Amino acid sequence: MSEKTLVGSLIIGQSGGPSSVINCSAYGVIKTGLENPNITKVYGAFHGIKGVLNDQLMIMDEEDPAELANMLHTPSSALGSCRYKIADPDVDDTDYKRILEIFKKYNVRYFFYNGGNDSMDTCNKISKYMNRVGYECRVMGVPKTIDNDLAGTDHCPGFASAAKYIATSFMEVSRDCHVYDTGMVTVIECMGRHAGWLTAAAALANVKGDGPDLVYLPEVDFDMDQFIADVKRIYAEKKNCLVAVSEGIHYADGTFVSEAKTSGTDGFGHAQLGGLAARLTEIIKAELDGVKVRPIELSLLQRCAAHCASGTDIAESFMSGKVAVESAVAGITDKMVGFKCTRDENGYKCEPELFDLSLVANTEKKVPLEWINEAGNGVTQGFIDYCLPLIQGETGMVKEDGLPRFVQLKRVFAK
Amino acid sequence: MSEKTLVGSLIIGQSGGPSSVINCSAYGVIKTGLENPNITKVYGAFHGIKGVLNDQLMIMDEEDPAELANMLHTPSSALGSCRYKIADPDVDDTDYKRILEIFKKYNVRYFFYNGGNDSMDTCNKISKYMNRVGYECRVMGVPKTIDNDLAGTDHCPGFASAAKYIATSFMEVSRDCHVYDTGMVTVIECMGRHAGWLTAAAALANVKGDGPDLVYLPEVDFDMDQFIADVKRIYAEKKNCLVAVSEGIHYADGTFVSEAKTSGTDGFGHAQLGGLAARLTEIIKAELDGVKVRPIELSLLQRCAAHCASGTDIAESFMSGKVAVESAVAGITDKMVGFKCTRDENGYKCEPELFDLSLVANTEKKVPLEWINEAGNGVTQGFIDYCLPLIQGETGMVKEDGLPRFVQLKRVFAK
Repeated sequence: MSEKTLVGSLIIGQSGGPSSVINCSAYGVIKTGLENPNITKVYGAFHGIKGVLNDQLMIMDEEDPAELANMLHTPSSALGSCRYKIADPDVDDTDYKRILEIFKKYNVRYFFYNGGNDSMDTCNKISKYMNRVGYECRVMGVPKTIDNDLAGTDHCPGFASAAKYIATSFMEVSRDCHVYDTGMVTVIECMGRHAGWLTAAAALANVKGDGPDLVYLPEVDFDMDQFIADVKRIYAEKKNCLVAVSEGIHYADGTFVSEAKTSGTDGFGHAQLGGLAARLTEIIKAELDGVKVRPIELSLLQRCAAHCASGTDIAESFMSGKVAVESAVAGITDKMVGFKCTRDENGYKCEPELFDLSLVANTEKKVPLEWINEAGNGVTQGFIDYCLPLIQGETGMVKEDGLPRFVQLKRVFAK
Repeated sequence: MSEKTLVGSLIIGQSGGPSSVINCSAYGVIKTGLENPNITKVYGAFHGIKGVLNDQLMIMDEEDPAELANMLHTPSSALGSCRYKIADPDVDDTDYKRILEIFKKYNVRYFFYNGGNDSMDTCNKISKYMNRVGYECRVMGVPKTIDNDLAGTDHCPGFASAAKYIATSFMEVSRDCHVYDTGMVTVIECMGRHAGWLTAAAALANVKGDGPDLVYLPEVDFDMDQFIADVKRIYAEKKNCLVAVSEGIHYADGTFVSEAKTSGTDGFGHAQLGGLAARLTEIIKAELDGVKVRPIELSLLQRCAAHCASGTDIAESFMSGKVAVESAVAGITDKMVGFKCTRDENGYKCEPELFDLSLVANTEKKVPLEWINEAGNGVTQGFIDYCLPLIQGETGMVKEDGLPRFVQLKRVFAK
């Protein structure tokens, strides 16, 4: 940590798949940056690090401050995102030289990157490179991922809002699919290729009595025979069955169920249209003698449903961006702003905590096995106790014409 | 219309596919019924007309009035629904005799049926039968359908909430699928087999600048070559394309696009898993040289998303139930309570209007052709002006634990 006052401009970039609240974190950085006397200018990188490489920087000082506040309720990455994997500087330092050139051109002394695993890796590499070449620049990671799979932090900004939407949607669909006295099996597919946090969040709906009967996460191996037996048992008992599955469920040999070529109705081994939920319901239909089935894929809806965002998530996401700027101005660099939380008789408390970027980058945090039931088809109370506080509070979204009012940026680019 | 005071009990039943606000209408009937001195008892038929036939009537007087108010924010049919098509009494009057028996057993003098086309038909048949056999009973249809396809009425309770959810989701997905500087074609499939009202509602998102580029309704024939050309044109211009399609789009020969066997990647003519959106995106992917595509099916979500219901829809749905009871008590029978609306410089006004059940039953109201653009790939301002007032106002849903608080009925059955 450097005690030295560092004066210069700031760049904030957003990267990876967006979330409902990634703009809250970015707004935390932008607003705090605009208000800090050591920060001479605030730039938004257009489409993440590509905006830096392409010299496409939006001057955030030119935006109307009141309009910027709408970022709190605007899903997706308002500055534009990218999926650009930066090279290892020891192998190819072209990008780093270019970044340094841009940093020097705009006297950038603060760099904030808002994203998931890969973004923390990008941050870490840039930080180390700048250090090596002796260019003073404070680099901070501002986390975002609905997947909730970043190491160190209690949870990730973006997860809770997706979780709230998923739990709410499960409650609603549960009411819908129980409406007839004729039976139905509904399978809802949630995102999460390697970590099952989002799918587990479906179980929050059970707190209100309207949740899934079965929950399958990628943390444990999927067994098709067991799945069929599970559904048959529930269906025999309730004449209805609501299932939550992660897109990433896989057999014991590691093959994703969604990609296995042997199941389904097409015996020719052709890749089949439709996702995992459609495949599973076709199998159930065949096994349960033509029972009515309904596959639902939450798809992009779960990561952009800002109208159903968690108030807690919005506030914490903003805080992570704000603390990133404050920490950097105070002399800290090469860290990610995560959360340290307590859940006890005094309720839920969340405080910012700084993590080494090198620790966070390229590690995936999965749902602990003790939060998955023994049968591997549900979650335990431990998960509920962990997750429920995160989805509290409503969005406070402003509506116009009965619809959301999303931020409209002027996008004034630096020359 | 009979001026005679008619004292007796009331049955309310719900039928057909549910909506976010069907319970608002039912609550309008139940609350008004419970408060009216001429109505001695209020029964809820368990699973619609099947509950009458099976003598499964829930005593609504036994429910906690405060708990019942949660029906205003509970999606799906709280009383249970059915898809039971009642016979023509001239062909088979078994069901009618049984209904009469139950009506006599519980001294039922008021019968209200809450549903779509088929339910209005059921109402009408029961009304005519009771009249024929000289049993005095006032029968009213309380409309519900997200499809908005009932004749006579300006619009149907349930449509606006689905429309609001669809427009909101299109805005959010639009932000999400524009986040990268690499292109994408997203196709979102909405409900509406024969009428395109719900798909048209996607265009409301364009009012806020975040809507679909192309909208295809079942009111006009679908031309695959034109569709591909439309997408290619938009994609060339914007490097992105967001499409709204109705599940019911069909070729000029009447074949549903979703059921046509010749398209897609499987040249063997096998029925393919996955819905219309998946099929269309596969075709676009092949035609646009491997462009990134994303099919999304709104599925049940669009008809049960009570958390995003229209405040206007909630109020009007309640009103339709209330007016049904008040009209029946005043002596009216064999009518459906629909809406008569004005939209002018004084804003939007909605008043109840009574329609003959025989007029409503078994007619489908489609989107007028003058509200569809000439190219057949979008809607006109006329539709927006019609629809926008309907989605105004928020739900006012009570939350507990950060999740919706749905009604929990005791379900005390009459002996």
